Amino acid sequence: MKLILPPIKMNRQKIEVLDQKLLPHQELYTEIANLRDGYLAIKEMKVRGAPLIGFTAIYTMGVWCREGSWDELDQVVSYLNSARPTAVNLSYELKRVKSFILEQKSKGKDLKNISLDVFDYASKLMTKANEKHLQMAQYAEQALVKKFGNRKLTIMTHCNAGWLACGTMGTAVGVISYLASQNRIKNVWVDETRPYLQGSRLTAFELYKEKIPHQIVVEGAAHHLMKNKLVDAIFVGADRIAANGDTANKIGTANLSVLAKHFNIPFYIVAPLSTFDLETPSGQEIEIELRDEAEIKSYKSHHIAPLSSKAFNPSFDISDAINITGIVCEQGIASPVTPQRIKDIYYGH
Amino acid sequence: MKLILPPIKMNRQKIEVLDQKLLPHQELYTEIANLRDGYLAIKEMKVRGAPLIGFTAIYTMGVWCREGSWDELDQVVSYLNSARPTAVNLSYELKRVKSFILEQKSKGKDLKNISLDVFDYASKLMTKANEKHLQMAQYAEQALVKKFGNRKLTIMTHCNAGWLACGTMGTAVGVISYLASQNRIKNVWVDETRPYLQGSRLTAFELYKEKIPHQIVVEGAAHHLMKNKLVDAIFVGADRIAANGDTANKIGTANLSVLAKHFNIPFYIVAPLSTFDLETPSGQEIEIELRDEAEIKSYKSHHIAPLSSKAFNPSFDISDAINITGIVCEQGIASPVTPQRIKDIYYGH
Repeated sequence: MKLILPPIKMNRQKIEVLDQKLLPHQELYTEIANLRDGYLAIKEMKVRGAPLIGFTAIYTMGVWCREGSWDELDQVVSYLNSARPTAVNLSYELKRVKSFILEQKSKGKDLKNISLDVFDYASKLMTKANEKHLQMAQYAEQALVKKFGNRKLTIMTHCNAGWLACGTMGTAVGVISYLASQNRIKNVWVDETRPYLQGSRLTAFELYKEKIPHQIVVEGAAHHLMKNKLVDAIFVGADRIAANGDTANKIGTANLSVLAKHFNIPFYIVAPLSTFDLETPSGQEIEIELRDEAEIKSYKSHHIAPLSSKAFNPSFDISDAINITGIVCEQGIASPVTPQRIKDIYYGH
Repeated sequence: MKLILPPIKMNRQKIEVLDQKLLPHQELYTEIANLRDGYLAIKEMKVRGAPLIGFTAIYTMGVWCREGSWDELDQVVSYLNSARPTAVNLSYELKRVKSFILEQKSKGKDLKNISLDVFDYASKLMTKANEKHLQMAQYAEQALVKKFGNRKLTIMTHCNAGWLACGTMGTAVGVISYLASQNRIKNVWVDETRPYLQGSRLTAFELYKEKIPHQIVVEGAAHHLMKNKLVDAIFVGADRIAANGDTANKIGTANLSVLAKHFNIPFYIVAPLSTFDLETPSGQEIEIELRDEAEIKSYKSHHIAPLSSKAFNPSFDISDAINITGIVCEQGIASPVTPQRIKDIYYGH
């Protein structure tokens, strides 16, 4: 796995993360030299994207092993976990790496010496995640070949589901990178993704770095593009997939799902099985995070709207299963998206 | 007709326009003391919105009469017309006011003395436009009462179709103001309207000034709001309505039309007959203006996207007649939106 600009990297046991707050205009790495550096990198969003946050936490635990002591372990895990309390991957990976560390302890290893094992553990997890992404991209490509043959395609995506968010190939953008590696991309429409502009700032940056042809559009342009037959297929990531296939993703995703259905354009979710949540029956039970209205009402230090106007800022929406052409995961593609198909693919039937 | 903050006003023959570039944070009037002031107010977008541009041009002609000479008339009209060459209202109103001035000339009047007649002519046109807007608002209200009874409503709108754009009551926002005057508004969802942010900057400002409850949302939130039954009806303006009812309006409008259809929510266009263009058979023949990519890639002096990424910036889109519940004009509501119904209402059958 080789990324052009890895968002996290290790060089002679020195862990560095790319400061994503400075993208796309400055590419600066900053070292995670101790526990607090890792905590702040996550908290201040130098690293973002659920998978990358998880991996950063693991590497930070490895750094801590070098100078920590056994009696601090629980406290350190809680401390790191508090950096972004809502991100599921963070607590999940911290739980896993704690078990891993305790397992090494049970083998009689010194905490200091476990550091390298943790780095190795993180690196293997990332390699594994990358293999899954490649597998998903290949499944997606097969579906596209079936529909479009081998012609070049114009793909639309929303928000950022690429290597900056994952630290690996990426999910939705992973599909695009893979198609590009086969010279199959004519153009990518990058939805700017208001209010946080992940499309303009991050996805466009990834595609620019990979030299993949792309154009940024406002989200309002979706109908215009689809109506004028300028979109072959849409690929987006997911934050959570319910048992019936309803999918939570960045606000604005569900608009695209309905428009795609209206214009008969394939609309695919790309997400590993770890994103599936079969304990949640449908999208109705998924809680939607509401974020600060300042994200909408201002840009950097500029006020856009009247100070006394309010804004309403839901951060995610639910695409109904019926409007999703297929869900691409490492086991194949669930299509049509039905509860039975989701269950079958999840349990590997 | 009394607006809280008229975008153009006359006081003892002094013509002043509100500098809309400074909104919503500064309310500054600037005088149109001569021809060049009027030209620059239009060119530099201190005034914007097709109807208001037209009225500003007429008033500027009145100002010019005070110090101009007959042999300059054609040249002056061309000069003003070149301020925004693509706005139809501008050339249309300039043609009309030129005829009006020549008519006064034929009565043997001095150019200097025609100034007051032109101001009076402009004022009467605006009063007439306002009466039409009130009539449209009343038709819209009747349709809403029929569907919802007398309960308070939550209305969604896109871009700016209010008194800042019109100099009069306004079309889509006119409906909202009218409903508010009857205490029928629970909430207004103001689409921020990327890239130019007319919603956040102007519509929110109008509603704030009128003390109408409102919340700004990103355009991506439309599905979330509609799915959660938080929108009773949608009202938007129009830039051009084709013979079959296909309607051009600010980019993003057509997204809403499809979502509204999907969720069975009434979606109305509000526009006077002067917006109808029966010589254009359908939306396919309406040319879509492409604007500078800088509007998407940067905000004020800040670059948002990678410098080498491209953006695609169509300024309008076409809502298909089939996705429009009704077109509200001063003659009533064309609903369902069919070529015959459009023709009937246009010719007053």
